Amino acid sequence: MSNVRPVFYVSDGTGITVETIGHSLLTQFTGFSFVTDRISFVDDPLKAHDAAERIRAAGQRHEARPIVIHSNVDPAISEVLAESGALMLDVFAPFIDPMEKELGALRQSRVGQAHGLVNFETYHRRINAMNYALTHDDGIAINYDEADLILVAVSRAGKTPTCVYLALHYGIRAANYPLTDQDLETDRLPARLRAYRRKLFGLTIDPERLQQIRQERRPNSGYAKLETCKSEVLAAERMFQMERIPTLSTTHTSIEEIASKVMSTLGLQREMF
Amino acid sequence: MSNVRPVFYVSDGTGITVETIGHSLLTQFTGFSFVTDRISFVDDPLKAHDAAERIRAAGQRHEARPIVIHSNVDPAISEVLAESGALMLDVFAPFIDPMEKELGALRQSRVGQAHGLVNFETYHRRINAMNYALTHDDGIAINYDEADLILVAVSRAGKTPTCVYLALHYGIRAANYPLTDQDLETDRLPARLRAYRRKLFGLTIDPERLQQIRQERRPNSGYAKLETCKSEVLAAERMFQMERIPTLSTTHTSIEEIASKVMSTLGLQREMF
Repeated sequence: MSNVRPVFYVSDGTGITVETIGHSLLTQFTGFSFVTDRISFVDDPLKAHDAAERIRAAGQRHEARPIVIHSNVDPAISEVLAESGALMLDVFAPFIDPMEKELGALRQSRVGQAHGLVNFETYHRRINAMNYALTHDDGIAINYDEADLILVAVSRAGKTPTCVYLALHYGIRAANYPLTDQDLETDRLPARLRAYRRKLFGLTIDPERLQQIRQERRPNSGYAKLETCKSEVLAAERMFQMERIPTLSTTHTSIEEIASKVMSTLGLQREMF
Repeated sequence: MSNVRPVFYVSDGTGITVETIGHSLLTQFTGFSFVTDRISFVDDPLKAHDAAERIRAAGQRHEARPIVIHSNVDPAISEVLAESGALMLDVFAPFIDPMEKELGALRQSRVGQAHGLVNFETYHRRINAMNYALTHDDGIAINYDEADLILVAVSRAGKTPTCVYLALHYGIRAANYPLTDQDLETDRLPARLRAYRRKLFGLTIDPERLQQIRQERRPNSGYAKLETCKSEVLAAERMFQMERIPTLSTTHTSIEEIASKVMSTLGLQREMF
């Protein structure tokens, strides 16, 4: 039997919820090669028929029963999808009954609610946080009065993606400050950061990994030399320790995990968008 | 009975999967006011005890049974959490049994796999896409040979957040091109975009909403006048129509939904990070 398994994420909306939980579920089954495909906005029987055809065809091609992870609110659509012969996993179905019992209320079945319509205020907060992250990236703007947090690290340690992620998903105003050679000459905080001590979070990174990243960016520069990376990282770590700045290594850490740890360490509670 | 319900997203990892599905689930129950809280990295019994205490206390404060949406792989931790008296919803549990039967293999229970460790190549692709989006934002760099797609729109119609989202979550190299006054004098594509016709996607927006966004950004400028917004949007829409560029209105559309529609329209299939 083939170890390749076609997996389809099917939704009447964006399919983001379905893909998020599906991906997490698949990582728990090792030794299989899952070929994943997303079919979004399947919101009428005709699209469902087309989707079912694609799913069936993938099963034949891979000689393995497909797995459909889906979130279709309309049962008629789920029935059509099931005609593909796939294993059907509805990501909401198991929770509706206990929730209805607990709340004493029936679920409202509207299509694609989680990532669909947005109100202006929410959108606005998100976009403003995003603009904030971009204008306060890499020390471009340095007035941090409005910052929810400031990531501090040497160049290329993962500050920018983390700030953008925090802005985009939590509406957090995340600035970042790159430690310069001059900053690293002492083990005290740069003067312009001192007033914001409680907003600071330090990122560090394995020097070999940093070297690899910088080498890709500016090949064979002094900036990308292993010696440079080692001494910068060492000096930054010493500063974080002296100043008791909470610190995390980004070497084997995903952007999601860095963002999560920064928020929980600094006590920032925000709802996810 | 109070309509306020405390909801906790509890996970031994970042809790992103749990919050994503939990949020989608809650949107299906209207008329309740859910007070949500995230407790991440609950990976030992001591942290679970602390979490259970917080959950119990919230239930007492709100005089309503809390709801815990969780993904703890270790059953010992789930048991401790359940002592809080909350309704417990395990987001993976219902799917493990059918998956194990289907695959003829047991789930591997490791902690926080979906958003945890990352390999260098994946991280790299993601960061490169992110850098690409930032350097190709707002027409800064205009060589689009490496672009997977180019969003075209008038200023402030939602290009930047969509590009960053596509980069961060799908590793897509998304550039964006802001239509200038000069571009809008004709209903043909700007010369520099013509070679990339198949990568183009147009965003449009309701002029009133655009006016609102621009007004926030540059109050009382000519740029923020309703007349300016109306004529720019009209000219852009005419161009998209003349040149048969696929178009979407961002007025009532979330960033996730815009990203999803762009990908499915242009036929870009990428796995979510």
